[in-house]
Amino acid sequence: MSGPSTSSSPASAAGVATAKGFRAAGVSAGIKTTAKLDLALIVSDTPANAAAMFTRNKVQAAPVLVSKQHLAKSGGVVRAVVVNSGCANACTGDIGMADAETMASETAKLLGCPAEQVLVASTGVIGVNLPMDKIKSGIPQAFVALSNAHGPQAAQAIMTTDPFPKESCITIVVGGKTVTIGGMAKGSGMIGPDMAPALPSATMLAFVTTDAAVPQWLLNRALTEAVDDTFNAITVDGDTSTNDAVVIMANGASGATIGDGEYAQFTKALYTVCLDLALGIVRGGEGATKLVTVTVSGAASSADARQAAKAIANSLLVKTAIHGGDPNWGRLLAVAGRAGVAFDPDRAKVTIGSTVLFTDGRPYDDRAPEAAAYLKGKDIAVGVDLGAGTAESTVWTCDLSAEYVRINADYRT
Amino acid sequence: MSGPSTSSSPASAAGVATAKGFRAAGVSAGIKTTAKLDLALIVSDTPANAAAMFTRNKVQAAPVLVSKQHLAKSGGVVRAVVVNSGCANACTGDIGMADAETMASETAKLLGCPAEQVLVASTGVIGVNLPMDKIKSGIPQAFVALSNAHGPQAAQAIMTTDPFPKESCITIVVGGKTVTIGGMAKGSGMIGPDMAPALPSATMLAFVTTDAAVPQWLLNRALTEAVDDTFNAITVDGDTSTNDAVVIMANGASGATIGDGEYAQFTKALYTVCLDLALGIVRGGEGATKLVTVTVSGAASSADARQAAKAIANSLLVKTAIHGGDPNWGRLLAVAGRAGVAFDPDRAKVTIGSTVLFTDGRPYDDRAPEAAAYLKGKDIAVGVDLGAGTAESTVWTCDLSAEYVRINADYRT
Repeated sequence: MSGPSTSSSPASAAGVATAKGFRAAGVSAGIKTTAKLDLALIVSDTPANAAAMFTRNKVQAAPVLVSKQHLAKSGGVVRAVVVNSGCANACTGDIGMADAETMASETAKLLGCPAEQVLVASTGVIGVNLPMDKIKSGIPQAFVALSNAHGPQAAQAIMTTDPFPKESCITIVVGGKTVTIGGMAKGSGMIGPDMAPALPSATMLAFVTTDAAVPQWLLNRALTEAVDDTFNAITVDGDTSTNDAVVIMANGASGATIGDGEYAQFTKALYTVCLDLALGIVRGGEGATKLVTVTVSGAASSADARQAAKAIANSLLVKTAIHGGDPNWGRLLAVAGRAGVAFDPDRAKVTIGSTVLFTDGRPYDDRAPEAAAYLKGKDIAVGVDLGAGTAESTVWTCDLSAEYVRINADYRT
Repeated sequence: MSGPSTSSSPASAAGVATAKGFRAAGVSAGIKTTAKLDLALIVSDTPANAAAMFTRNKVQAAPVLVSKQHLAKSGGVVRAVVVNSGCANACTGDIGMADAETMASETAKLLGCPAEQVLVASTGVIGVNLPMDKIKSGIPQAFVALSNAHGPQAAQAIMTTDPFPKESCITIVVGGKTVTIGGMAKGSGMIGPDMAPALPSATMLAFVTTDAAVPQWLLNRALTEAVDDTFNAITVDGDTSTNDAVVIMANGASGATIGDGEYAQFTKALYTVCLDLALGIVRGGEGATKLVTVTVSGAASSADARQAAKAIANSLLVKTAIHGGDPNWGRLLAVAGRAGVAFDPDRAKVTIGSTVLFTDGRPYDDRAPEAAAYLKGKDIAVGVDLGAGTAESTVWTCDLSAEYVRINADYRT
């Protein structure tokens, strides 16, 4: 992916309920101990084609398992997604499965659709059962609040430790008709790479809606392609969740249809929305003070490039050095060295910002002050050129602060 | 390895200069900015058989490269190891290689032996050249200080961010003769697994001496075996260094010879010393407040067991939860789930201390207070039984504190 389509508007703050024929709501059902919003509903007025990607963790939360079953049963036709924060409904056994089914069926009852046309997502603490009385009273509360103006509330309601909500929206013109792609995401910790490339990663939930008409198989392809270089290319702590899910719904309300001819344009726009949401997750990573763009170039293969970039992006030593504004480029090279990728260190080049600190087998540590000044910024780019080929990969991460430790040491208390 | 030989004395505080015919010294050469000890010398009075294991990082520091060449050239016969802290001499190009050679040759000149009988090790900041004037005046200073009473000074001199020195010693009786195995180690951060099992990991240096006579090939085998379940089974931050090295020297001064018949006894004793040193590294891990023993059992293979245990031991979410005393067992299971090993979560069992918090597919979160009380301790054991076989592996790590971030954000400042 080379960036957004030139024919598209810039991504904006409008979100998951902006595309025609979608409504959303976010309410406080009392699942969280505070009065914060904790239950979101996204509804398409008409049955929409849907595509989804879920965590590859072997431990899969009940809502993930139920949503997969529903997608299979409904043939990928979906009316709504119901989401709660405050409880992950993961590792909760048979009760958890029944609870996730109930979330879907209670929503379906109000919409007058089959239960399998409702997908479910949850995020929060693992191993605790859902407070179903609260869920059951929250769903009708959300139903009556549904509005195309309530995307922001929905984005609030899916947050856990997120410091701010993540929304994005873009419009493109297809065959003279305006198509909107909007979405929302959450995720702050337990954000990390699945070992299998081209699959989503992290305790992140993302929901995207579009009023284009897109055949289910094409929607699937577009989502996979967009996610690989966005949600799948971010990391906060390298931990893959039991609940990760990305869902896209396309209801055709714009009157525009996406076929082979419009695929590239549509997918670029979808990529733009996904990247905007994904970078929002990283910027709001637990304890994050800096967004770090890690680019590995000169790799023998794309897989090598991604693998080395992920290793660097997940290195505690790299993340703490950047947090401290220390241009400790040796750590970048040392991590590349243990990443299991092919290269000769004597041909490698290490860059912080635009400052080359190591090349041709020797250090330029006298340039460290220049790099240190650059590291005072909030948007940091670091690069390792392996000198072993032409493949390149970019991964985004954040710095590691004492605040991260505080958040995660006290998560349940 | 099932533990120390019953015929051996417990590991004690004596160290690398305790075995007969060895002397050591630690001096302040001025490599560190403070007056701390920063240059160590370990000398065998007679040529000793040596075996060594080095980092598998593709980026290898000059002292690692030089030591490998010296071992090959000398046929594994070694008189001394010279070690500096304060500068890793890694990523330092041709100058770095020449400097490491000079460290060896300056030492060899004083000992009257070929340069290839001297091994070199360095630890500290990457990418900075050694201050050779200080090294050159420090080596003779260490030479005159050599004594069998100066093991503690040597152990001090190899420290970087280590909060305390690591020494260990054991004696066994072989054929009526007392054999001593003693050693020292350093390492606090950049402690992590090499991806290849059965290979050492981490910014750790360990030096072991014994007065047994051990053929070089047998010494090699014993070292590999002992390291696999000790230094190779610890992690602080998962980062493998450019400088890792474990060296053992056997000079035969005790008059006892280790052959096939004595191999098991000798290796168990060596294992005991290595484990003692390795656990010292973890206890003194950067910012560590707790020693965490992670055991994965019921695995389909030993490789699976080790892989899952390492993933859990390196998880930021697990390490911060333990730091905060939060019995967040769901994180243990979620990490096992992303570790790429074969198991069915419904057959898994998660334990904190002796409290089972998840089994038979359901949580027992009501037992969380019991586990929380246990987590107030300093020695924490957590376990995941995968229910997929009979293989087991134990890995040691420490908790992750805000202090870790502080240490590594400010490492060079």
